[in-house]
Amino acid sequence: MLLSEKNLIGSIRRLAAASRNQAVLRGIGDDCAVLRPKAGFDLLVTTDLSIEDVHFRRAWHPARSVGHRCLARGLSDIAAMSGEPLACFLSLGLPPDLPQKWADQFLAGLMAVARRWSVELAGGDVSSAAKITADIMVVGQAPTGKAILRSGAKPGDRIFVTGQLGASAAVLRRMFAGERVRPSRSSRHFFPEPRLEVASVLRQRGLASSMIDLSDGLSVDLAHICEESRVAARISASKIPIASGADLQLALHGGEDYELLFTAPPQARVPKQIAEVQISEIGAILRLSERESKKSHSRKDYSSAIEILDKNGLLEPLAPLGWQHFRKK
Amino acid sequence: MLLSEKNLIGSIRRLAAASRNQAVLRGIGDDCAVLRPKAGFDLLVTTDLSIEDVHFRRAWHPARSVGHRCLARGLSDIAAMSGEPLACFLSLGLPPDLPQKWADQFLAGLMAVARRWSVELAGGDVSSAAKITADIMVVGQAPTGKAILRSGAKPGDRIFVTGQLGASAAVLRRMFAGERVRPSRSSRHFFPEPRLEVASVLRQRGLASSMIDLSDGLSVDLAHICEESRVAARISASKIPIASGADLQLALHGGEDYELLFTAPPQARVPKQIAEVQISEIGAILRLSERESKKSHSRKDYSSAIEILDKNGLLEPLAPLGWQHFRKK
Repeated sequence: MLLSEKNLIGSIRRLAAASRNQAVLRGIGDDCAVLRPKAGFDLLVTTDLSIEDVHFRRAWHPARSVGHRCLARGLSDIAAMSGEPLACFLSLGLPPDLPQKWADQFLAGLMAVARRWSVELAGGDVSSAAKITADIMVVGQAPTGKAILRSGAKPGDRIFVTGQLGASAAVLRRMFAGERVRPSRSSRHFFPEPRLEVASVLRQRGLASSMIDLSDGLSVDLAHICEESRVAARISASKIPIASGADLQLALHGGEDYELLFTAPPQARVPKQIAEVQISEIGAILRLSERESKKSHSRKDYSSAIEILDKNGLLEPLAPLGWQHFRKK
Repeated sequence: MLLSEKNLIGSIRRLAAASRNQAVLRGIGDDCAVLRPKAGFDLLVTTDLSIEDVHFRRAWHPARSVGHRCLARGLSDIAAMSGEPLACFLSLGLPPDLPQKWADQFLAGLMAVARRWSVELAGGDVSSAAKITADIMVVGQAPTGKAILRSGAKPGDRIFVTGQLGASAAVLRRMFAGERVRPSRSSRHFFPEPRLEVASVLRQRGLASSMIDLSDGLSVDLAHICEESRVAARISASKIPIASGADLQLALHGGEDYELLFTAPPQARVPKQIAEVQISEIGAILRLSERESKKSHSRKDYSSAIEILDKNGLLEPLAPLGWQHFRKK
């Protein structure tokens, strides 16, 4: 059966009614959703586009995975600020000839993530579109002034990542090579889990001075931390936790792992594992060199702010190649 | 010059930095924006998709108008709840071969509206896409419990609209007929102004029992009020304020006027003009008939909830044809 906008809106309303968060006074059914966050909290807002043939391919990604990834990406941004997600809003553009089943499976994947994290689907928009287009907006909260920003890293801080890196890019590399990869539920490419619990523990224990989620790739995302904090960084190749099936290059530059990258002050006691997720120390934050700090503040200046100690003990600059570069290969 | 993602993000960051709202602690530059709404306010959230060849055509709509309409649509939803807009988030998918100038003009149009209403562009996402795709999310606020909903209309309430109706559809009809229409700044099709001031006055004076913005068309949007309030409605054809160039059918069923439709209790003293905008009383809210109220609560039941007194004094049912129907003609 082909897509009917009426069926689609009906499905969305039914699914939305089954998702609840007490911060949402009114969800779908009015011109706006009405939210009442608790007093003493700041609000966090993030949006992420998922576009067919840019962020996923119908031939590679089952609809359930596309729906899962769509919301998980937004939740990962909330995790990166150490927030608690409250509600999501979905703008969905779908080709008129899309099978209803695809839309149903997409929504099932998205709503499974929503239920898992008590996120209410509180609104959105529906339209026809040439390619499947899903824009997810997530609203979350963090105690006033306690959200962990990209800008808090200080020279002397140590650098940590959660989990293993490169898993998602490794799957993508296999698919680009023509391999048919079975979308396992445990795959961080097909079904990434946002690290909300780890982030919450880091905030509650005051362990992290800055944080970002690894969506573009370690080299690019660490450069973002350096840029916003106006610092430099040094990491060790031998300390990078490389995912099974990946290699160092994928772990450094492959994106979409949705792990967390954070910095902690020298005295912070960071556990080796939080909420059953491995935590690896991979380097340290340094002062910006005289030369670097004199440059203007554009992103470009931070392309030489990161160095990596390779396995031969040589210190090399680490260019933020990242995901976009990798993707075009 | 063709589009460069780097230029685009640079432009957006510069423009965003020039838009400020004190509720936004952190805008673009982190994983999430951080908002701190004032105590004693509820938060309002709305999203609206604008997709090329669905919501606009490049041949008909200058980029500046597309940008203006994109944000004005979201602000109109905030107005419909009688809220004050705070921040917007823009997810933008653009074809790689789009001229940079188009993107610049689009952003100029959008940011002119943002500045006019002190809305901060606080975040978003950028991607390539086959067709121009802009999803705007607007966050606003209303005093706790004071947002005007669709669900507050009571039998005996009177029905009002702001401005004149059918102007936008009249322009569209001319363009569909092959006419080239000059996009005048005063045109509600090309440059609709959200009725935020009118809505704010209505809330402050406690005049409106329910409200919605006229995006789909009077017949459809009044049916939404009836559906959410579980009431019926009767309007008079002779009282509909028809815009210059439009006719009764366009005023009843044409969408995208972004005027307000509201109901007021019998005793409310509704002025003939608010904030220099004409206010017209067009009918009254009725009790649902025995037959109607026994049906289940799906939208379909409300398709016969509205009747119109025509110019010959005959009472006819008014089917919610609305915009989608009109558009397909």
